Amino acid sequence: MSVTAPAGFTAAGVAAGIKDSGGPDLALVVNEGPSRAAAGVFTANRVKAAPVLWSEQVLRGGLVSAVVLNSGGANACTGPAGFQDTHATAEKAAEALGHSAAEIAVASTGLIGNRLPMDELLAGIDTAAGELSRHGGEKAALAIRTTDTVHKTAVAERDGWTVGGMAKGAGMLAPSLATMLVVLTTDAGLESAELDKALRAATRTTFERVDSDGCLSTNDTVLLLASGASGVAPGHEAFAEAVREVCADLARQLVGDAEGASKDIRIEVTGAATEDDAVEVGRAVARNNLLKCAVHGEDPNWGRVLSAIGTTSAAFEPDRLDVAINGVWVCRGGAVGEDRDLVDMRYREVRITADLAAGTESAVIWTNDLTADYVHENSAYSS
Amino acid sequence: MSVTAPAGFTAAGVAAGIKDSGGPDLALVVNEGPSRAAAGVFTANRVKAAPVLWSEQVLRGGLVSAVVLNSGGANACTGPAGFQDTHATAEKAAEALGHSAAEIAVASTGLIGNRLPMDELLAGIDTAAGELSRHGGEKAALAIRTTDTVHKTAVAERDGWTVGGMAKGAGMLAPSLATMLVVLTTDAGLESAELDKALRAATRTTFERVDSDGCLSTNDTVLLLASGASGVAPGHEAFAEAVREVCADLARQLVGDAEGASKDIRIEVTGAATEDDAVEVGRAVARNNLLKCAVHGEDPNWGRVLSAIGTTSAAFEPDRLDVAINGVWVCRGGAVGEDRDLVDMRYREVRITADLAAGTESAVIWTNDLTADYVHENSAYSS
Repeated sequence: MSVTAPAGFTAAGVAAGIKDSGGPDLALVVNEGPSRAAAGVFTANRVKAAPVLWSEQVLRGGLVSAVVLNSGGANACTGPAGFQDTHATAEKAAEALGHSAAEIAVASTGLIGNRLPMDELLAGIDTAAGELSRHGGEKAALAIRTTDTVHKTAVAERDGWTVGGMAKGAGMLAPSLATMLVVLTTDAGLESAELDKALRAATRTTFERVDSDGCLSTNDTVLLLASGASGVAPGHEAFAEAVREVCADLARQLVGDAEGASKDIRIEVTGAATEDDAVEVGRAVARNNLLKCAVHGEDPNWGRVLSAIGTTSAAFEPDRLDVAINGVWVCRGGAVGEDRDLVDMRYREVRITADLAAGTESAVIWTNDLTADYVHENSAYSS
Repeated sequence: MSVTAPAGFTAAGVAAGIKDSGGPDLALVVNEGPSRAAAGVFTANRVKAAPVLWSEQVLRGGLVSAVVLNSGGANACTGPAGFQDTHATAEKAAEALGHSAAEIAVASTGLIGNRLPMDELLAGIDTAAGELSRHGGEKAALAIRTTDTVHKTAVAERDGWTVGGMAKGAGMLAPSLATMLVVLTTDAGLESAELDKALRAATRTTFERVDSDGCLSTNDTVLLLASGASGVAPGHEAFAEAVREVCADLARQLVGDAEGASKDIRIEVTGAATEDDAVEVGRAVARNNLLKCAVHGEDPNWGRVLSAIGTTSAAFEPDRLDVAINGVWVCRGGAVGEDRDLVDMRYREVRITADLAAGTESAVIWTNDLTADYVHENSAYSS
């Protein structure tokens, strides 16, 4: 049901001719109100694409009436001219929709370093504006794909109000936001500050704990728009939980569609002294290329888990580390544990648990295996 | 010429039966004196193999009379029993050579988490002791290989004294020592403190700036043994330079033989505010899997260089970054520069220069491309 599941939103997805393939490449999501409160979280990369710089500025005002998203070009590392392109995009949408450009967020994804074909993009905005519909959420989700093999949507329905969302992302998936564009919508009636609080809490334990390939994008954008059309103002806990549910659902879908991956790896770090320790260890394991290769080969290589843990500054003693792969404790006390031949790694989801025996905190990080297909997709294709 | 190039050293390499393949797998390097001064640098991984824990202890005494090295097993994550195996190895060599076990260093490489076949290993020490020779350096270098396709040796000859060395390492090559075993020898007459100073200075700008795959080993060991047999005590500068020359030569050979690699990538960061900034940026670029795939595909993808730089805390402004690939400045001022079609990436060595325009410091980091062969070698082979 995507971004049009909550009341008060329309959307469209069209083929504007930005992509050489001729596939859908431009999406429009419009908040029809009555409220236009919004919040956003953006990439931690210091090299930020023009649409990120623009949308950060828009979000400072706390109001978003529409989002223009395009695939087929990231508009990153394009200099002042690229920023002008984003500005022109917002102005065009403002004109087509009768809103102020200062309330139009823009998000782009695709190749870094190329200018966007602005004639096609601006004409596409008119086309999309003409196709806006209460049922346009699916088409919008389809139009923001790059190497995504499927479109990603999620919905959390509550008593009288709803949170919906769409996401794209298949490579450059790494912490401080996986490479991705996400638009979340809700018909709950909440102010920007409340949206911001719920969105930051949700991304911290969902999108920010996906680390597919360790590469942090220049374009990551997560937006949350509230229309207030339900007339309901849910409590903070209930709202935050619904936003977290949708984010977790979309994050899991991103991992499941990562470029070239054959395994989704869930790394749970337990017994940590602090949550930060657990996250640091989880990330170190998630970024270990040798382990990722071993998982691809269905080899329960716990030695590579230990050597990754050893690179962190987390509190632990090497001779107290336990590691389980798919439930079999192949490493006990930093040395050989149960028989590794008991580990069954045939299925796509692989669960690695590392117990640091240093406390009671924990965290889960998701990553993927490293495959020849990943290499092929990212060497043969300039993305 | 290897470790027996300097006067006062003998060595041997034998097939002890540690490897299933039956290839050479045990090396012995003996300092025949008159001096036995030594220095060592070990992995920064907090999960340290038994031979690392043992040899760190030996080096605290500042004297090493012999080094036993084996391939075919890392003796890492093997618990107290594994440490006893290393101790027994040193005792056996001490007995065979008539030295104290407290002056016998041990180094191992191979699969993590398996006990070594001690019957074969101990018998091999006797065999090796019987084959010690002034010309045994090459055989020793051959016996420490794991997935290395060639053995690595280097020599720096000076006026009346010499520094020689051998190295192994092909995967798990990452900072704070590439995964590797290195033994350096010299006939210079210098004390342990002087050796230590020269060795640390040399490794800091050579082995510690090789980052083949971002994976830090549990077994990295670099030893420098001085026999004093030349009767010459060179000055600090001259000696440090000779040690650096041999380390740089061996480090370059490690990069050139990295598992599955088809390109050696030299990343030079210039215009940095501090050397630390330059190293941080170089490492971030070296560890970017997407860039490594692009180089494999001979795609001068400077956008991936910028997105890697953007993840660091180094001083820079995004719109002042310049990037050259093989001498062509494809990125100027954070945006498109010269025509990327001018970049010729057919050859094995690829040079990336990133100018931060923030100061006068610089650093060079070496890495490799990411290939399907790397994935295959590390997923099909439990190492």
